[in-house]
Amino acid sequence: MQSQIADLIETLIQEEHSTEAVRQAMSDLSPDDVALALESLPLAQRKQAWESIKTANRLDILVEMRGESRQLLLKELDDVEIEALFSDVDAEDLLEMADSLPDRLVDIALNQMDNKQREYYQQGVVYDDDIVGRWIDHDLLIASQSIRASEALRLLKKHTPSYTDMIYLVNRTGRWVGCVKFDQLFKAQGHDPVSSLIDEECPFILASAELTKASEQLERSSLCAIPVVDDNHILLGRFHAGLAMETWRLENEAQQMSTAGLNEESDLFAPVPRSAATRGIWLGINLLTAFLASAFIGIFEATLQQVVALAVLMPVVASMGGIAGSQTLTLIVRGLALGQITRSNLKSLLSKELKVGVLNGVLWALVIGAITLWWFQNPMLGVVIACAIILNILMAALSGVLIPVLLDKLKIDPALSGSVILTTVTDIAGFVAFLGLGTLFLL
Amino acid sequence: MQSQIADLIETLIQEEHSTEAVRQAMSDLSPDDVALALESLPLAQRKQAWESIKTANRLDILVEMRGESRQLLLKELDDVEIEALFSDVDAEDLLEMADSLPDRLVDIALNQMDNKQREYYQQGVVYDDDIVGRWIDHDLLIASQSIRASEALRLLKKHTPSYTDMIYLVNRTGRWVGCVKFDQLFKAQGHDPVSSLIDEECPFILASAELTKASEQLERSSLCAIPVVDDNHILLGRFHAGLAMETWRLENEAQQMSTAGLNEESDLFAPVPRSAATRGIWLGINLLTAFLASAFIGIFEATLQQVVALAVLMPVVASMGGIAGSQTLTLIVRGLALGQITRSNLKSLLSKELKVGVLNGVLWALVIGAITLWWFQNPMLGVVIACAIILNILMAALSGVLIPVLLDKLKIDPALSGSVILTTVTDIAGFVAFLGLGTLFLL
Repeated sequence: MQSQIADLIETLIQEEHSTEAVRQAMSDLSPDDVALALESLPLAQRKQAWESIKTANRLDILVEMRGESRQLLLKELDDVEIEALFSDVDAEDLLEMADSLPDRLVDIALNQMDNKQREYYQQGVVYDDDIVGRWIDHDLLIASQSIRASEALRLLKKHTPSYTDMIYLVNRTGRWVGCVKFDQLFKAQGHDPVSSLIDEECPFILASAELTKASEQLERSSLCAIPVVDDNHILLGRFHAGLAMETWRLENEAQQMSTAGLNEESDLFAPVPRSAATRGIWLGINLLTAFLASAFIGIFEATLQQVVALAVLMPVVASMGGIAGSQTLTLIVRGLALGQITRSNLKSLLSKELKVGVLNGVLWALVIGAITLWWFQNPMLGVVIACAIILNILMAALSGVLIPVLLDKLKIDPALSGSVILTTVTDIAGFVAFLGLGTLFLL
Repeated sequence: MQSQIADLIETLIQEEHSTEAVRQAMSDLSPDDVALALESLPLAQRKQAWESIKTANRLDILVEMRGESRQLLLKELDDVEIEALFSDVDAEDLLEMADSLPDRLVDIALNQMDNKQREYYQQGVVYDDDIVGRWIDHDLLIASQSIRASEALRLLKKHTPSYTDMIYLVNRTGRWVGCVKFDQLFKAQGHDPVSSLIDEECPFILASAELTKASEQLERSSLCAIPVVDDNHILLGRFHAGLAMETWRLENEAQQMSTAGLNEESDLFAPVPRSAATRGIWLGINLLTAFLASAFIGIFEATLQQVVALAVLMPVVASMGGIAGSQTLTLIVRGLALGQITRSNLKSLLSKELKVGVLNGVLWALVIGAITLWWFQNPMLGVVIACAIILNILMAALSGVLIPVLLDKLKIDPALSGSVILTTVTDIAGFVAFLGLGTLFLL
């Protein structure tokens, strides 16, 4: 699959786009694959490639593209083209694209939609894109709680949507009353009332739930889909396994990108000024922390002038603290995400991490002290760096536990900001310990 | 759900474990939740908590625990207890636990298994734990290709496993010939041969496929499960949505942990020497790279002695290069994982990243140069740091593109090793550029 995409990319970059072979390759591949291929083209070639896609396939491909890539492409199209493109867009597709469309284009799309779809769109758009309510699937089997098994089976013959392993029962006001799993339904007698087949364990979720929480709940249920209800338990639709898989896959990508201060919607070939601007912000934040560390080093200018070896070895002290601290931080961030960290085990955790810190601190202090002694032939310098390493690794253990716990208490996601704060703390602590001890014992 | 776990943890740590209330709480929660709670206890309290779990629930909970936690717990149990615990373990559970069990305990479990389960175990254990073959689900609807629709429907009445939306058809030798989706089956006439209902688009996967690839394929198929076959297309079982969701969820966790050199199976309260040892390795690798950077700084000792401001500002140059490089690296690593980077767009990518580098390099060089001028009142120092920043950010762009591409060519996962190599390169380049320019223009 990947090699097919790669082949398509090669062809699109090197050859004539309008050849019949390219057209054919693009309609043979799935919309996701064509979207991936388009995103891999430098902007200059992307528009041309877009034009060699069959008109009927274009919308599906546009929906699959990343936000920024879609935005960049739509900028190239005029309103007539866009109106034609959106002529049969449905609520789900429009919700997928809404964040990367100007209001004007959303209105063009809404004007062409039928009432049902427009209503679904308006129901969904009030939720953020990490919330179940935005992605509700409306294609599901709903029946009145008063029918019999034979009538329910007749429903299946009419239409069985993907990811269906049960029928949802509602009362007269549309309130969800329970679900009947296929295995119960198949085993039932035709005249059994479906309400007698209700699965008591069947879960439901609120439209306001987070996608990741809903995905966890779906995984635990061993069902292909679970019903989504509003605060009054009115059945709105369902959340199915396809959405859960997508949630995790994208979550994975977002997490990876966020460690570098990037957004998962970013385009590989976004225009240079635009890329520079989005990345510049992250560089700026990190510049602040770097200058803060420099300011602390600046306090010890006089010492550095006399013992220049301190300047040479500074990165070692800072780096060991940063690495040890990230290890503790990562473990605690996972524990917080899983709900495993409570008031009463926090003390034991801190004491355990400090003990690990002492052990690794002493071990690596000896190694680093010995290397320093051999390198600079200065025993006191060896002792100073060894002590600084122990102090910084202990500081790292302490910060690695406390920073994420504090951030979590302040309702700030520790996975995002934790590591920037932590490395600032360990850098400063490392420099101050090392240069401070140096000032005391080496001058 | 999370607050229930937290409550249980609090109770287990603070109160008597043997009270009836605790026993009840533990059997009301799902095995995953109890496993999470057990993992949150300091080791001393874990064994006691384990004993207050009803015997019948223990195996399910043990299976849900992380590898290291399970290992630590099993060490506390004697062979008689383990034999009783494993008396009705099935192949799937044993495969889940095998990597954290000594061979002796695997044998105890295998001896008590029936032949069918033992065979499944032996089929699965040859595959690594990121391969589909290890996690095949054997509970599925299989029919001969020669039956009629009415007979297929009768199969459903006998048993409909979770995640079932189709029936798999095999020929006389057990070879997979296709699948019939429920929607086709429900609409068919009773006397229709099932072979006429086969869905031509239904995908299959090889047992040797990677879990993440299989999960992507399942997501694209909009099915609840897809058939797993061996190299001769003999049907072995299926890969279902529950497994795909679990794959992504755990992949997410593994990725998060691996950035700090940790394993996702690690226990929050693993014994101190053990934790210190596993983390020590990562510290050691990073120590090597830190000393390498120090060695390069060492070359410029004489310069540092004369212009101590260089020592104060070193972290700023290194940090900006590291951050800019990680941004490019992350984007390229994602592109490689998605198959978006080919020979022909690599040049455009490199040129785009270098342009972003020039823009951000010049911008931040001006800012940093100005701050330096104001701080140290030394115009030449400002010029030197500004040039060093530009050089290092360009080096970062170059390395950010080329390091992951080279690692990928060498079949090394760039997501794991890329960032260690990259920051070593940008650290060294930053120090050499800054101190080298300083030597040339400030002495």
